[in-house]
Amino acid sequence: MQIRFLAIVLFLIDGVARADEGMWLLNNLPRELLKKKYDFDLTDAWRDRAMRASIRFNNGGSGSFVSPNGLAITNHHIGSDSLQKLSSKDKDLYRDGFLAKTQDEELKCPDLELNVLQEIIDVTKEVQGAVKPDMKPAEALAARKAIMAKITKDSLAKTGLRSDIVTLYHGAQYHLYRYQKYTDVRLVFAPEHQIAFFGGDSDNFEYPRYNLDICFFRVYENGKPAKTPDFFKFSTVGPRDSDLVFVSGHPGTTNRLETLAKLERRRDVTLPYQLELLRYREALLTQYAEKGAEQRRWAQRDLFPVANARKALTGQYHGLLDPAIMNKKLEVEASLRPKELKPDADPWRVVEDLQDRRNAGLERAYYLFERGDGFDSRLFRIARHLVRLADELPKDDAKRLSEYRSSALESLKFQLVSPAPISKEYEQMKLTGSFYFLVEMYGVNNEMLSDIREQKSIPDRAHELIRDTKLDDVAVRKRLYDGGRKAIINSNDSLIVFARKMDAGARKLRQRHDELDEIQTQAYAEIAKIRFEKFGTSIAPDATFTLRLAFGTVQGYEEDGVKLGYTTTFKEMYARAKDQQYHEPFNLPKRWLDGKDKLDLDTPFNFVSTADTIGGNSGSPVLNRAGEFVGINFDRNRHGLVRNFVYTDHQARHISVHSRAVLEALGKLYGADGLVNELVGK
Amino acid sequence: MQIRFLAIVLFLIDGVARADEGMWLLNNLPRELLKKKYDFDLTDAWRDRAMRASIRFNNGGSGSFVSPNGLAITNHHIGSDSLQKLSSKDKDLYRDGFLAKTQDEELKCPDLELNVLQEIIDVTKEVQGAVKPDMKPAEALAARKAIMAKITKDSLAKTGLRSDIVTLYHGAQYHLYRYQKYTDVRLVFAPEHQIAFFGGDSDNFEYPRYNLDICFFRVYENGKPAKTPDFFKFSTVGPRDSDLVFVSGHPGTTNRLETLAKLERRRDVTLPYQLELLRYREALLTQYAEKGAEQRRWAQRDLFPVANARKALTGQYHGLLDPAIMNKKLEVEASLRPKELKPDADPWRVVEDLQDRRNAGLERAYYLFERGDGFDSRLFRIARHLVRLADELPKDDAKRLSEYRSSALESLKFQLVSPAPISKEYEQMKLTGSFYFLVEMYGVNNEMLSDIREQKSIPDRAHELIRDTKLDDVAVRKRLYDGGRKAIINSNDSLIVFARKMDAGARKLRQRHDELDEIQTQAYAEIAKIRFEKFGTSIAPDATFTLRLAFGTVQGYEEDGVKLGYTTTFKEMYARAKDQQYHEPFNLPKRWLDGKDKLDLDTPFNFVSTADTIGGNSGSPVLNRAGEFVGINFDRNRHGLVRNFVYTDHQARHISVHSRAVLEALGKLYGADGLVNELVGK
Repeated sequence: MQIRFLAIVLFLIDGVARADEGMWLLNNLPRELLKKKYDFDLTDAWRDRAMRASIRFNNGGSGSFVSPNGLAITNHHIGSDSLQKLSSKDKDLYRDGFLAKTQDEELKCPDLELNVLQEIIDVTKEVQGAVKPDMKPAEALAARKAIMAKITKDSLAKTGLRSDIVTLYHGAQYHLYRYQKYTDVRLVFAPEHQIAFFGGDSDNFEYPRYNLDICFFRVYENGKPAKTPDFFKFSTVGPRDSDLVFVSGHPGTTNRLETLAKLERRRDVTLPYQLELLRYREALLTQYAEKGAEQRRWAQRDLFPVANARKALTGQYHGLLDPAIMNKKLEVEASLRPKELKPDADPWRVVEDLQDRRNAGLERAYYLFERGDGFDSRLFRIARHLVRLADELPKDDAKRLSEYRSSALESLKFQLVSPAPISKEYEQMKLTGSFYFLVEMYGVNNEMLSDIREQKSIPDRAHELIRDTKLDDVAVRKRLYDGGRKAIINSNDSLIVFARKMDAGARKLRQRHDELDEIQTQAYAEIAKIRFEKFGTSIAPDATFTLRLAFGTVQGYEEDGVKLGYTTTFKEMYARAKDQQYHEPFNLPKRWLDGKDKLDLDTPFNFVSTADTIGGNSGSPVLNRAGEFVGINFDRNRHGLVRNFVYTDHQARHISVHSRAVLEALGKLYGADGLVNELVGK
Repeated sequence: MQIRFLAIVLFLIDGVARADEGMWLLNNLPRELLKKKYDFDLTDAWRDRAMRASIRFNNGGSGSFVSPNGLAITNHHIGSDSLQKLSSKDKDLYRDGFLAKTQDEELKCPDLELNVLQEIIDVTKEVQGAVKPDMKPAEALAARKAIMAKITKDSLAKTGLRSDIVTLYHGAQYHLYRYQKYTDVRLVFAPEHQIAFFGGDSDNFEYPRYNLDICFFRVYENGKPAKTPDFFKFSTVGPRDSDLVFVSGHPGTTNRLETLAKLERRRDVTLPYQLELLRYREALLTQYAEKGAEQRRWAQRDLFPVANARKALTGQYHGLLDPAIMNKKLEVEASLRPKELKPDADPWRVVEDLQDRRNAGLERAYYLFERGDGFDSRLFRIARHLVRLADELPKDDAKRLSEYRSSALESLKFQLVSPAPISKEYEQMKLTGSFYFLVEMYGVNNEMLSDIREQKSIPDRAHELIRDTKLDDVAVRKRLYDGGRKAIINSNDSLIVFARKMDAGARKLRQRHDELDEIQTQAYAEIAKIRFEKFGTSIAPDATFTLRLAFGTVQGYEEDGVKLGYTTTFKEMYARAKDQQYHEPFNLPKRWLDGKDKLDLDTPFNFVSTADTIGGNSGSPVLNRAGEFVGINFDRNRHGLVRNFVYTDHQARHISVHSRAVLEALGKLYGADGLVNELVGK
């Protein structure tokens, strides 16, 4: 166990990534490195297609176009949100799968938005120029917000494209990203949940794996399949051992450039809280799911993300508790941090001091009351948005909370008026559960809690809040949205009244949090300057759920003396299911049990590579040198869980479905010949 | 929801229990009340048989003799510990059940000890007399420990019976309990886990229910079935609506006489911690169980107790968060607490102050390091006992930690040298998990943790501790036990060395905890005096896992407008299983699916009564006026979860298996004719 971290450290100690580390910006790719190490010329054409054929799924994943007619592939676990919203008591697409035999049968998703990056513009100078050296944190924050709002608003007006500013290197760079947006997205194919997630939570973040974690959608424009000339051709061969591969996707968050003080804070305060929350929610949902089939159907939609996060964050937490990792992080920081800085001009010290000022109580309150951990209900989130929109929309764009800026409004409204069904029974269970969690975390004697309870018991209060709201009706939401401030003030809808009552307190926490964040942003910008002087942009910035390109080689690894190959096969999956006596979560769908003889059992199923991925990369296409689609990333192994903090390729791998497995299963088990023909370009 | 608590309060407001409240001491039964309310004469003969036919299962439950030849019945979930210890990879008695067709086939349990109460002696005067008014807490504690050790040691020497002193009314009374002890206990019958716990965690603490939660053992003496002339005759009729019934068992803990300050402490500190621990363990075990069949078999033994406690404590916590309950507890306390007491002579104030002095950090440290929440491993517990025995046995009985007094030694050694199998893989998983929990709760920067980790990663450290111990070998344990202090000091067994290293710190916490406890004991004794002046022993003392008699009437109740009958039937169970699509935990055993037609489907299966029970009552016989066995208690419904703090019979019920269901299933599904004949006295 010790050795692997010593190995890692060699790459880190001088701060330069020499292994396959890096989630690279599309406008700053490591071309020299790729040429030198892999003799690969990354051309502009290759890059541009990778950019325009890669898709961001706004519910937290990645995907790509795999035909010129708008056909998109992602993971089943990324498509699952839509699968569940398209399901009903009598038709469970999430559990049983779906195939549209013709385009007419493709099912329109109620609120799925896809973004495709078109252009990146460096706006660092404009953003940084707006903040003057003599400004106080609150002023600097306001100035930065104002310039960013202006840039995105102008960009939207000029191009009609969704325009976001991405903060890179913790504030050392700001880039404007322009996206093509698709909101008419239709379901084409999904396999059964049991084959998409064979092995369940037990095998999640493990390898060897056997998951057909895929799902196909098609994007439409004006009622017709969109033309998508930039797409990835599906390889009928797939990757082989030692191949160079690329992963083009949207890694969510990494913390590799954070200071040691911040990492310690994560270890001592943030992660223990998060893990408590996740374990609490998982237990709540699991217990609810046991009540019956319909309850299970509802709870499923939240269970996977919660269990998945619990496992990922547990891995992060355990990584930060490993003395080998922390000692080496300490060495890296010592080598970067100048000794001659005065205490009050030392940005590392500023970050350190902030961890005290942002005490554990404030942090929890922020999570519970503002992030909404204490109000876990879709209906409440709708109510809060409506209440805040009424307050925010009359303001100047620059003075709004960032999620209500003009550039974000269209996507937000798309979500708000989604016709996806809502279960009041389910909402009430979740709201009751999160009120109890709030009390458990925050205690019973505080003002905001009294405001919530109104001297009633928690179950009674949650019950009346959900019973007396009409926000499950889309027409009611539309009326309140359109009616603006007056409609909100006059509304006696239980959740609108409740969200208004909670808002002053929550906003205060938000303000305090954002001001402290601003101080941290400025300190990190200082640190970034020092790092830039040393390394320039030869280190990739931390992940920001924006498009990045990673690369690596397809290769197996050794674990406890056992050599694990670079792929698994269908045959090995059947053996594992039998070995586990087909007990859930190793119970294969009937189609797979009955259809075993139809398959070439030696077909490679899942494979691993060293490329640098993290959560958010789910659904990313894996490409070969020719830019062909050779697989789809869906997970990483447990050795990769520490990659939030440090890259390692000793044992750490990301895991993908092999392109041959996709074609074999679609053709031989699902009778999806039309889909196969579209993929292989017949 | 509000109404039920208003109703409760009427019984509490003057402090006298008028409903069927009370877990009564066998030497202080409410004979007048029973005569007046139910026209029932509780004779000495009835009482004596109830006492000598009732059994305490030392792993936390109750049971009773149901034949003159040592045949004992308890719940499946109480027998499960033995079922699992008697199982192996190839033969899972817990899952599949067991029937000894003849006495030769009865299986000897590795470490099951049963206690049967023979006599109660009031020793209040002796114990209280040993504590002088001018003693400091530490001195008073020592004096009380000394006199209690002397009394139990003398009693053991005189009678040969297991002798324990029970502290009642938080120290207002001390009684000496003498038990017949049985250690040769053999398994006779168990049904499949799926019918014993049909509905699983989902239906746990719910009603209607359909559980055959039974298990039969036989006690042996000198290799032959013991003669048990005091036993309960099995009723072939069972209870009917509105019948008066009695529950004779061992309720574990109630907190009804605790002060408001102490209850608030439970609410704000103790219960949130306990719930975190339980949820953490449940997640750990569930995840481990998913890895495969053998892992599932090991994890099962801990999963039920953990999930059960999680549900029970959640109910307690939610009860304490209900303003209706706390407000009324406040009223009760105000009516009892004299206004003229000076602050320093006010025992309520003393208890309140103690909650501050016993701060949350100290409390957690005590739980983690001394109670052992941070070292959850059977092998570690064995190591700690061996280390402490070596230190304690050379001391005077009076100066030992209570669990090592002469009177307790025989039972302790019985456990220590148990040949029950131990899985090192399972132990390592649990120890790793609890080390991580310890860090999560207590932080990473403290001395005891450094001592644990020795600068290694937690998994590495737990791995080497388990790998390098030989305590899974019974012979090694015996040698260390017999070798005493010298053997322990010279041992280089990894866990012995580790337990020694931890011991000084843990003992310090224990000492501090016990001293504060002594102050609390004295304050409660003061409060008890005030309560005694008002009510005498007309209120039963809080539960202490000793024999108590409760009474009540068999009756259904209404919930959400639905009338629930006093019994369920086999027919209703089959309907529920079908309704839940036989999905786990509603998957009936094959025997029950195939054998449906053999059964009289109208047989009453489970029934409810108002009698006052709590955890520890599992397996208690339910008796009719004639003292016949009409059922076996196994649970209470969720309305009964607040009974830790307050008795209510509005909706709150305990749940039992009907005696007719037992006979019907044994005879028609299990072919257990011999057992049926023995029960009905043929």
